[in-house]
Parts: sequence; C-alpha cells; structure tokens
Amino acid sequence: MIVRNFHDLKDTDRAVSDAQWTSVRMLLADDKMGFSFHITTLKAGSEHTFEYKNHFESVYCISGKGSITDLGTNETHEITPGVMYALNLHDRHILRSEEELVMACCFNPPVTGAEVHREDGSYAAPEDLESA
Amino acid sequence: MIVRNFHDLKDTDRAVSDAQWTSVRMLLADDKMGFSFHITTLKAGSEHTFEYKNHFESVYCISGKGSITDLGTNETHEITPGVMYALNLHDRHILRSEEELVMACCFNPPVTGAEVHREDGSYAAPEDLESA
Repeated sequence: MIVRNFHDLKDTDRAVSDAQWTSVRMLLADDKMGFSFHITTLKAGSEHTFEYKNHFESVYCISGKGSITDLGTNETHEITPGVMYALNLHDRHILRSEEELVMACCFNPPVTGAEVHREDGSYAAPEDLESA
Repeated sequence: MIVRNFHDLKDTDRAVSDAQWTSVRMLLADDKMGFSFHITTLKAGSEHTFEYKNHFESVYCISGKGSITDLGTNETHEITPGVMYALNLHDRHILRSEEELVMACCFNPPVTGAEVHREDGSYAAPEDLESA
C-alpha cells in the first residue's frame, strides 16, 4: 500500500510548477497503477491551452471556479466544485480559472514525471520520452 | 469531451449505495478512458473491509477524517484531507470513517457499474462479469 500526503509532497520535487499552476504528482508511472494521479492548482485569473494528444485525462474540481472551452466544438462549460471533465477525444481546450482551482486529475497512460508541456499544449507519448 | 456534475449524478442510477456508503460513478468502463473515477462518501462511524483482488485503486481524501489499516502489515494510517492511499498490491484493508469521508477514487481496470462487493470485499474481474 502506498500512502502519501499532498501537504508533504507540495514542497518536494513531486510538485511541478510553472508561473500559473502547480501539479503535485501523488502517483506516477513507476507506481505501476496503470494511471497517474495529480492534484493541480491553477492560479486565479489564469488561462491555459492544453491538448493531450497522447493521454486520456479526467479532471474533477475540488474547489474554485472557472470554465473550460472545447476548441473542437467551441462549447464552454462552467467549472465549480463537483464538475468533472474527461478528455476522451484528446480534446484541445482552454481552461480558465476565475478563482483558484484545485483539481484532481487522472492520466492514462500514467505520466512519468519527466514530461514538459510542448508548444502545442501536449505531453510526449511514453515511447517518445524513452527514446528522447 | 465528457462533462458531468457530481451534484446532478448523485440522485441518478450512477450513484451506487449500501447502508454505509454511496459511490457516484463519474466515469465508467464504457467511457473508454482506461480507468473509472468515482466520488465515494462513507458515513461517519462506519467501517469497511475491502480487497480489490482484480483492480488497482487509488483513493484521495477530499474531506472528512478516518483511518485505514493494511491487513497485510497491520499498519494503520490516518486519513485527513490531502491523504491518498493506493492499493498497488491489491491490499486487503479496513477503512474507518470517524467523520463523513468524501473520497476521489480511480480504478484500473475501470469498473463497469455492474459489480457488487462480494463476501470477500472484492469486485469480480471484468472477464468474469462478462461471462456471468
């Protein structure tokens, strides 16, 4: 059994940040669960364009307020606590935070921890990371 | 993109209950994400013995207070908001809720929605469900 505490990990190298967000990796590929699990905090007033071409991701809002725009359909959905979105079509999207958002995120395949967001908003596929 | 709201689903057949817990299935196998994602609420004062022999499960505490005992090692861990446990060894365990626990749960393989807890605290493997 693995037991980890967000409050312990958020000041370690399991917390990956840029200026506008921090993602604490509670589970990564080497935990061999078949998915990774992250708690991601997005700063109030921030906007993010992502497209996980190589991953399925689900995102559940624990706290905060924002919106997501599906760039395939141009539909916008409000995000409040209890709302989940799942990028089952690897949907390119804009995520906006009006109030600081805290989100529980699952990735399949699991993130290794070595990924960085590329210019197109994606993470590399696991096989590309291995050969990099 | 799939968008669902816990508060809409909790009064539908996506909420599975017994006397002591309710699990709202935000994502199931037929969403084809490769995992399922549930928000599970455990009543204050309840105790549960589970052993997911056929699944990996991670559980993140959103709110509440309780503990988990690993029946393999007899270690007990406190559960408070921010604590995650992951049953990477299909660990048989007792989960106790002192105050109502709200937990974000990921299952791999994904739960289909047709499973029931068997006497041993497990869910059937997907292939056994199909042939049932």
